[in-house]
Amino acid sequence: MRCKKCQEKAVIGLPRHNAAFCKGCFNEYVHDQVARAIKAQRMFGQKDRILVAVSGGKDSLALWDILLKLGYQADALHVDLGIPGYSATSREKVERFADAVAASRQAKLIIHVVKQEEGAGIQELANLVNRPTCSTCGTIKRYQFNRAAVERSYDVMATGHNLDDEAARLLGNVLHWQVDYLEKQGPVLPASVEGFARKVKPLYRLAEREVAAYAVLNRIDYIVEECPMAKGSKMLLYKEVLNHLESESPGTKQAFYWGFLDRQTETRPTAGSMAEKDQASLHPCTVCGQPTTADVCTYCKMMARAQAASPR
Amino acid sequence: MRCKKCQEKAVIGLPRHNAAFCKGCFNEYVHDQVARAIKAQRMFGQKDRILVAVSGGKDSLALWDILLKLGYQADALHVDLGIPGYSATSREKVERFADAVAASRQAKLIIHVVKQEEGAGIQELANLVNRPTCSTCGTIKRYQFNRAAVERSYDVMATGHNLDDEAARLLGNVLHWQVDYLEKQGPVLPASVEGFARKVKPLYRLAEREVAAYAVLNRIDYIVEECPMAKGSKMLLYKEVLNHLESESPGTKQAFYWGFLDRQTETRPTAGSMAEKDQASLHPCTVCGQPTTADVCTYCKMMARAQAASPR
Repeated sequence: MRCKKCQEKAVIGLPRHNAAFCKGCFNEYVHDQVARAIKAQRMFGQKDRILVAVSGGKDSLALWDILLKLGYQADALHVDLGIPGYSATSREKVERFADAVAASRQAKLIIHVVKQEEGAGIQELANLVNRPTCSTCGTIKRYQFNRAAVERSYDVMATGHNLDDEAARLLGNVLHWQVDYLEKQGPVLPASVEGFARKVKPLYRLAEREVAAYAVLNRIDYIVEECPMAKGSKMLLYKEVLNHLESESPGTKQAFYWGFLDRQTETRPTAGSMAEKDQASLHPCTVCGQPTTADVCTYCKMMARAQAASPR
Repeated sequence: MRCKKCQEKAVIGLPRHNAAFCKGCFNEYVHDQVARAIKAQRMFGQKDRILVAVSGGKDSLALWDILLKLGYQADALHVDLGIPGYSATSREKVERFADAVAASRQAKLIIHVVKQEEGAGIQELANLVNRPTCSTCGTIKRYQFNRAAVERSYDVMATGHNLDDEAARLLGNVLHWQVDYLEKQGPVLPASVEGFARKVKPLYRLAEREVAAYAVLNRIDYIVEECPMAKGSKMLLYKEVLNHLESESPGTKQAFYWGFLDRQTETRPTAGSMAEKDQASLHPCTVCGQPTTADVCTYCKMMARAQAASPR
C-alpha cells in the first residue's frame, strides 16, 4: 500500500476516500480536514480564544494538539469526575500532554474537580439523585464547560466529537425521530442567548479510527479504555452498527452525517430561527444565572437534590 | 411462558409488545394488526377487488391467507421470473396454496411467465440489458403487477411487505437522505394518475418473524430460501443491522418506521400534493401507455434493449 500523495510506504488506508497515506501526508490530511471544518462552518478565527474540553481520551487531546499546531489560541478545561480507577488516569494523561505539548505553545490547562466543587464524585452524585450515571455526567460536563467558557470570556468552546460520534448520535435521534434534537445536531451551536457559549466540533469530518491513528502516530499519550460507566450504552451500540455498515459500504457514515448537514442547511426555515427560539424559551436560572427553560436549571436542581439526600 | 390473553401455554413471545400468545390468540393478534393497518390507512373496503402480488414466500402467501380469512375479495398474481432452481419451486408453492386454500374461497390465481411474455428469463434479460438482476427484476415485477391490476380493473394492489422490509428500506433511504424516495415510503400509494393502480402494504405493522410464525403455525407451505439473486443485497444488510438493534432494544423497528409515518403525516405539505406532483410529471408511455416521466417507460426501454441485444 503506497501513499496516494507521495508514493512513500503508507501507514493507513482510508477506504471511504479510496486513499492511503504515509505518516506525513496523513497528518496533513487530518490538519486539512480540521481546517476545512473550521472554515466551512465558520467556527472561529485566528484571533478567537478557544476553550477545548479535554477528557484524556484520544479525540479531545488530538483536537487540542491539532488546534495548537494550526496556530490557534486554545486553552483546555478538564473536569475530574472522580470515577474510581478511571478519572485519576484520565487526568494524568491530560496533565502530561499539557506539560509536554501545550505549555511550550503558551496554552494553559484548567482543571475542575467535581468532588471538590460538589462534595461528591459522579457516581455518588448519580446515586444521590437517583439518575443514570451517564446522564448525570453529561449534565455536569455540559454545565461546567459552558460556565467556564462564559465566565472566563472564551469566544468559543470546542469538543472532540468525531464523525462516528455524530453519526451515532444522529442514528439514535433518527431511529426515534427526535426532531427537536435533530435541529441541534450540527457541528456549530451558536451562543444563542447570553450565558450560552458558542460550541463547535472541529473533528466532525474525521472518523474515529482516523483520530485514533493520528493520536498514535503523533505519540499522544491518551487513555485507551472506554469509561467503565459507558458499558452497554446506546451510543456504543449505534457505533457498532454503523461500523458494520461502513465495513460493507465504505463512506456510509460520512454520507449519512454530511448528507444530513446538507439537507439541514436547505430545510432550516430561517438562519436565525434557533436563536429566536432559544431567546423565546430561555431565561437565567434563579440560582446560578445560567440559561434554562425552567425556573431552576437541571444542574442546580440536581445539586439541590444531592444535598438534600446527602447524609453529610 | 403463558399467553397474555388466555393464560394457555404460549407458542411465541413478542418482546416489543411485552407479550406472548398461544396459537389461537396469536392468529387473532395477526388478523387484528392487519385489520388495523387496513382501517388506519384506509387501504380498501369489503367491496373492493384486491390483487395480491404473491411470490411464494411467507409474506405474500400469509397476506393472501389473512385477507381471505378477513373476508376480502382477494385474487393473486404470481410472476414466474424463470430463475433456475428457484422460480419453479416458488410457483409450485403458490399453486399449491391457491388449490388448497384460495379456491374454496372463490379466489383465483393469475400467473405471468416472464420467459413466455418476453422470450427470456430474468437473468438472461438482466445480462442482455447489462443491469443488476435485482433492479431488472424490480422493474419487471412493478410493471407486471401494476399493468395487471389496471387492465383487470382491480381496485387495489396489495404486497406482502412487512415491518422489517419497510424499516430496512427506510434505513437505506435515511442513511443516504433519499428525500424523494422518503416521500413515497408510506404503506399506501394512491392511484395518483390514470394507469397507476392504488398500492397498499397491509403487513406493515407485523415484524418478519411474526409473519413467519403465522405461516408456520397455519401450515402455509412457502419457499423458505431467500432468492439466490438477493445474496449480499443492501436490504439484507439493513435488516441484519436492525435485527441487532431490535434484540438490544425491542421496539426499535416499530418506533423507527411508525414514528416516520406519524411525522410524515405532520410534515406533508398538503394531502393531495403527491397526486399533484405525479400529475404534473407523468404521462403515458408512447409504447405501452403506462405512466412514465420519460417518453418511453423503463420497462419498454429495457425490453427494446433486450430485443436489440438478443441473438434470436
